Amino acid sequence: MADLKITMPDGKEKEISEATTPLQIASAISPSLAKKSVVAKVDDHYIGMNEVIRFSGKFKLVTKDEDEALDVLRHSTAHLLAQALRHLHPQIHLGVGPSIANGFYYDTDDLAEADKQVAADEFPAIIAEMKQLVKQNIPINNRPVSRQEALKIFAADPYKTALINDLPENEEITIAEQGDYTDLDRGGLVPSTGWIKHFALTSVAGAYWRGKSDNQMMQRIYGLSEWDASRLEEQKKALEERKERDHRTIGKQMELFFTSQEIGAGLPVWLPNGAAIRRTIEDYLVEKERQNGYMNVYTPVVSNLDLYKRSGHWDHYRDDMFPAMTADDGEQLELRPMNCPSHIAIFEHEPRSYRDLPYRIAEFGQMHRWEKSGALTGLSRVREMTLNDGHTVVSPEQVEPEFKDILRLIREVYADFGFTDNDYRFRLSYRDPNNTQKYFDDDAMWKHAQDALKRAMDDMGLDYFEAEGEAAFYGPKLDIQFKTALGNEETMSTIQLDFLLPERFDMKYTGEDNQDHRPVLIHRGVVGTMERFVAFLIEKYKGQFPTWLAPVQAVVIPVNNGAHGDYAKSIYSKLMKDGRRIKLDNRDEKLGYLIRDAQVNLKTPYILVVGDQEVKDHTVTVRFRGSDYTKEMSVDAFVEMINDDVANYSKGSDKVKEMLNK
Amino acid sequence: MADLKITMPDGKEKEISEATTPLQIASAISPSLAKKSVVAKVDDHYIGMNEVIRFSGKFKLVTKDEDEALDVLRHSTAHLLAQALRHLHPQIHLGVGPSIANGFYYDTDDLAEADKQVAADEFPAIIAEMKQLVKQNIPINNRPVSRQEALKIFAADPYKTALINDLPENEEITIAEQGDYTDLDRGGLVPSTGWIKHFALTSVAGAYWRGKSDNQMMQRIYGLSEWDASRLEEQKKALEERKERDHRTIGKQMELFFTSQEIGAGLPVWLPNGAAIRRTIEDYLVEKERQNGYMNVYTPVVSNLDLYKRSGHWDHYRDDMFPAMTADDGEQLELRPMNCPSHIAIFEHEPRSYRDLPYRIAEFGQMHRWEKSGALTGLSRVREMTLNDGHTVVSPEQVEPEFKDILRLIREVYADFGFTDNDYRFRLSYRDPNNTQKYFDDDAMWKHAQDALKRAMDDMGLDYFEAEGEAAFYGPKLDIQFKTALGNEETMSTIQLDFLLPERFDMKYTGEDNQDHRPVLIHRGVVGTMERFVAFLIEKYKGQFPTWLAPVQAVVIPVNNGAHGDYAKSIYSKLMKDGRRIKLDNRDEKLGYLIRDAQVNLKTPYILVVGDQEVKDHTVTVRFRGSDYTKEMSVDAFVEMINDDVANYSKGSDKVKEMLNK
Repeated sequence: MADLKITMPDGKEKEISEATTPLQIASAISPSLAKKSVVAKVDDHYIGMNEVIRFSGKFKLVTKDEDEALDVLRHSTAHLLAQALRHLHPQIHLGVGPSIANGFYYDTDDLAEADKQVAADEFPAIIAEMKQLVKQNIPINNRPVSRQEALKIFAADPYKTALINDLPENEEITIAEQGDYTDLDRGGLVPSTGWIKHFALTSVAGAYWRGKSDNQMMQRIYGLSEWDASRLEEQKKALEERKERDHRTIGKQMELFFTSQEIGAGLPVWLPNGAAIRRTIEDYLVEKERQNGYMNVYTPVVSNLDLYKRSGHWDHYRDDMFPAMTADDGEQLELRPMNCPSHIAIFEHEPRSYRDLPYRIAEFGQMHRWEKSGALTGLSRVREMTLNDGHTVVSPEQVEPEFKDILRLIREVYADFGFTDNDYRFRLSYRDPNNTQKYFDDDAMWKHAQDALKRAMDDMGLDYFEAEGEAAFYGPKLDIQFKTALGNEETMSTIQLDFLLPERFDMKYTGEDNQDHRPVLIHRGVVGTMERFVAFLIEKYKGQFPTWLAPVQAVVIPVNNGAHGDYAKSIYSKLMKDGRRIKLDNRDEKLGYLIRDAQVNLKTPYILVVGDQEVKDHTVTVRFRGSDYTKEMSVDAFVEMINDDVANYSKGSDKVKEMLNK
Repeated sequence: MADLKITMPDGKEKEISEATTPLQIASAISPSLAKKSVVAKVDDHYIGMNEVIRFSGKFKLVTKDEDEALDVLRHSTAHLLAQALRHLHPQIHLGVGPSIANGFYYDTDDLAEADKQVAADEFPAIIAEMKQLVKQNIPINNRPVSRQEALKIFAADPYKTALINDLPENEEITIAEQGDYTDLDRGGLVPSTGWIKHFALTSVAGAYWRGKSDNQMMQRIYGLSEWDASRLEEQKKALEERKERDHRTIGKQMELFFTSQEIGAGLPVWLPNGAAIRRTIEDYLVEKERQNGYMNVYTPVVSNLDLYKRSGHWDHYRDDMFPAMTADDGEQLELRPMNCPSHIAIFEHEPRSYRDLPYRIAEFGQMHRWEKSGALTGLSRVREMTLNDGHTVVSPEQVEPEFKDILRLIREVYADFGFTDNDYRFRLSYRDPNNTQKYFDDDAMWKHAQDALKRAMDDMGLDYFEAEGEAAFYGPKLDIQFKTALGNEETMSTIQLDFLLPERFDMKYTGEDNQDHRPVLIHRGVVGTMERFVAFLIEKYKGQFPTWLAPVQAVVIPVNNGAHGDYAKSIYSKLMKDGRRIKLDNRDEKLGYLIRDAQVNLKTPYILVVGDQEVKDHTVTVRFRGSDYTKEMSVDAFVEMINDDVANYSKGSDKVKEMLNK
């Protein structure tokens, strides 16, 4: 082999001999660099610190202070886990074991004996074995092998064999060797097991091989791994917090929704409690929109496929659409991916004039998106969703004032849900100036529209950041980015200018000059889809919904159903007639159990206990959520208080304060 | 040919010679019979009165007093129309020309010159020509021809040629000859044109050849024909009434909904005005159901096809279902034909005990039904529909009380919509006792269940009729049959007992005895689908919706927008904030025009006109729908009145009466 040439980060070229390792290069620069270097890279290839460099290219050392080093550590910890498992379950088969956002996982399958699958109660034993291997500081090395060799090494492992067979013919195959353990691996590992010190196993869950439900169910073991102990503790706590807030966990506990294979992946069923939240939000928004001049409509969820050919969705968006339906007579139908074409059809149903603008249409529009089954998550990533959708048709001059009106509406809604400025930030999404051919071709329009959005934001005195390359194909937009309770950033609301669909659908209105003009279409979502919004709210409120949104606003519990049942029922009926969502819990259980059930599982804002005293005084004893505080008050006072609480969107209701202070 | 043998209606057999005509047989019985006989039948074959009988079989004379004779007359009038058209449009091509429920039509196409297609303004000339032909009393005769002969006769007519080519190889082809006019026809015609005396042409509309939208659009000419003049007048009036009430006509006028080929046949789009009615009904019913212990849910409109295989819909109902969607990985999905399987999944999501029963689920459940394109009609026959659906799971002992509760709920709803006992009748639908193998096999269940329904109706003191053979496959039911404004009978509400799905889905609950028990499922619809219900209401109210349902509850019109526009706007805003649906009409048009538009097109209950006097007095002048009566009242008094009107479902509001009488 000829000598190799690598380019150092400072741009200098360096000739190296055949047997050079990254550790040698690092040590030559400084011992401290050598100490903190985790792995090296030549171009996109990982090279272990003790491995021989086999390629020419751009050379880079990955040091502990880089994010990438954390991936290397976590990836290495997955291997460590696998090695320990092989000692404890000699027959275990392994799938894939990558690093992920906050840790790592490894998919395992003890085919030999089904009842021997790894379970969480085995974690202490596995951790102990992993620690043993760390103590031994076993060297880790990657090396290339031929395809035949690889197939021979993994002959006993059906998953690895399948992975090898999937690799392109000309791709180099490498394996990682770590003592008695060998894995199929592309590298990116620490030099030896001694580098792995602060780790934990957190959970195990079923996962289909390759994410496909037709395949074998494997056991996915999740873990954490960090460079230092305090960071590991932080991650453990964050994980606990995420679990506690996870809308899937709370959704199950509060009986809000479920999904099932029988009905279909990504097709959530809203249980009575979840449906109560959703309908409350829908009713609230429909009325809010009506007050703001929107006309609510219902349009079909299924349409002739040609409609989406005309709109361009079929060309640009087909992979995300459900499979088409083909009728006997050849007609093709399609579940709609978006509502815009239906709303445009409404605008175009009659000739429109400048007097009709802004023409505002709103709908809780159901849409379908063919998400990959592996990506589906509770309510937040689904295949059927209902969007709080709206479209405004405006003249070019109306873009700016209408944009402001929509943004005002959005912020009013935020206030009612108790979102503050700290919860979100504004992003103006522009086209990529270096890649303009990716966008609808009209330079003047882009400049004009982007300037208009910026001016509107400035006028309103709102802070924002600008993101080039985040615009839609058809025009610039404002996205309102929320930090979710789980730490991700998501777009909640959006106002998008569209100059393309008006062309495609030949939309027009008669101007004051009696001539035809082309309008601008504004797509607008106030709170996004009901599915994602409710998932967001569950996690934000930790299931403790404010009274106006709570699925059960109060639980009435008689101390003794025989003696106080009728009285409890009369209070239940009174509140129901007022439109409140009330549960009467007269189960034959201990009072403490019933109170705890209402507090912990239902997370209800008010618990009303009625016994002898309350029957006699015509009162209720109210237990407020989140405190042990109880207060006896007249039935009428409670009714007034809870109704006031609801009417005020549960924010600073004077009646509630007054009652608490009395 | 050997002599023929016919069986007379009294059962006697009669040998007749080759040349006998029905007229000879009728005359031999009595001259009056001969005079009133329109056509004869031997088995299913029509024989004209003057034609030679060519078959042996059961003989029957069709006399003027029978319904069938009316079909013969109308069918003959269609031919008369065709003959007249051929004289006026020598090149015209003809499709089919049958008798229909109240008259007849003929599909025509003047291919020669597109601008010569028949239009309504030609009707007087066509009628004149038809009367000429009646005066000539041209004999009408059917005779068999060979296929070649038929193809030769109709060589110039592509539609008739296509019809001939569609006839099975061994079917006898007959033609009808009427002077210079020949038609392809199976008979059932009067003896001569002189028999046709009282007829009219009513409308012309586009109709696709064979009802398929890919085919040529033809002109369908509709007409009436009766035996006497007074009956024709009645029919004309009834037709006018039908047109006036037709929900498609009113739907267009009031801008309630539309359908378009671009979106797809049978997929209605609810415009803002129609959507306002629908949402009001939905909100009303959700709250009504909640008060009655139903839990509202949302479930997916699309499911895994297997779910409907398990439920049996795929086996028994496939022709009415949308085409399936097949994903790349082979998963098959289906738009749901019914909501029951989703609701059963909710029941089965948790273990249930006797304490959970009756378990009541309700949903505005969207469903899809693959209706033939020819059957689609406005909102009343559609492919996408939303059912006010509900399911109750009960123990066998609870069937009777739950049935009564549901019926009570239905009748409360009827009262709020202003339906009286005269509008509907109760039908208990039983299985056919002579055909029990068509039904779920459990004789004891059928007897028990049918008795229970009967007993419940008797207990409630309600009149009903019993219909054997109208039950569902899975159990008996109550149907509530409404006479529609157009004279048809439709099922509005239904309560169906189902003993089959609980088996198929292995539904169970734990009884007091701690054992598993099989529940009964009750399917329940209060007002059917939103589509059909709104179509029904449009026709019932003739578009004059009671205030609580009216899409626009009041229109505010300033006499002069410059002088009174701000005041009008303030009234508009005040009412909008109260939740009323208000239109501010400040168009630059004459006051009379604006009032008429609100009265005639919007059919709004209240028109508020404001001018100098009203601004000065802080009043509005109210114009009440359906009268010329106007009244000036204070703004507050009007607000109080309209809110009271809405709160009382617009029935006997004291406030309205009080205001009118003041």
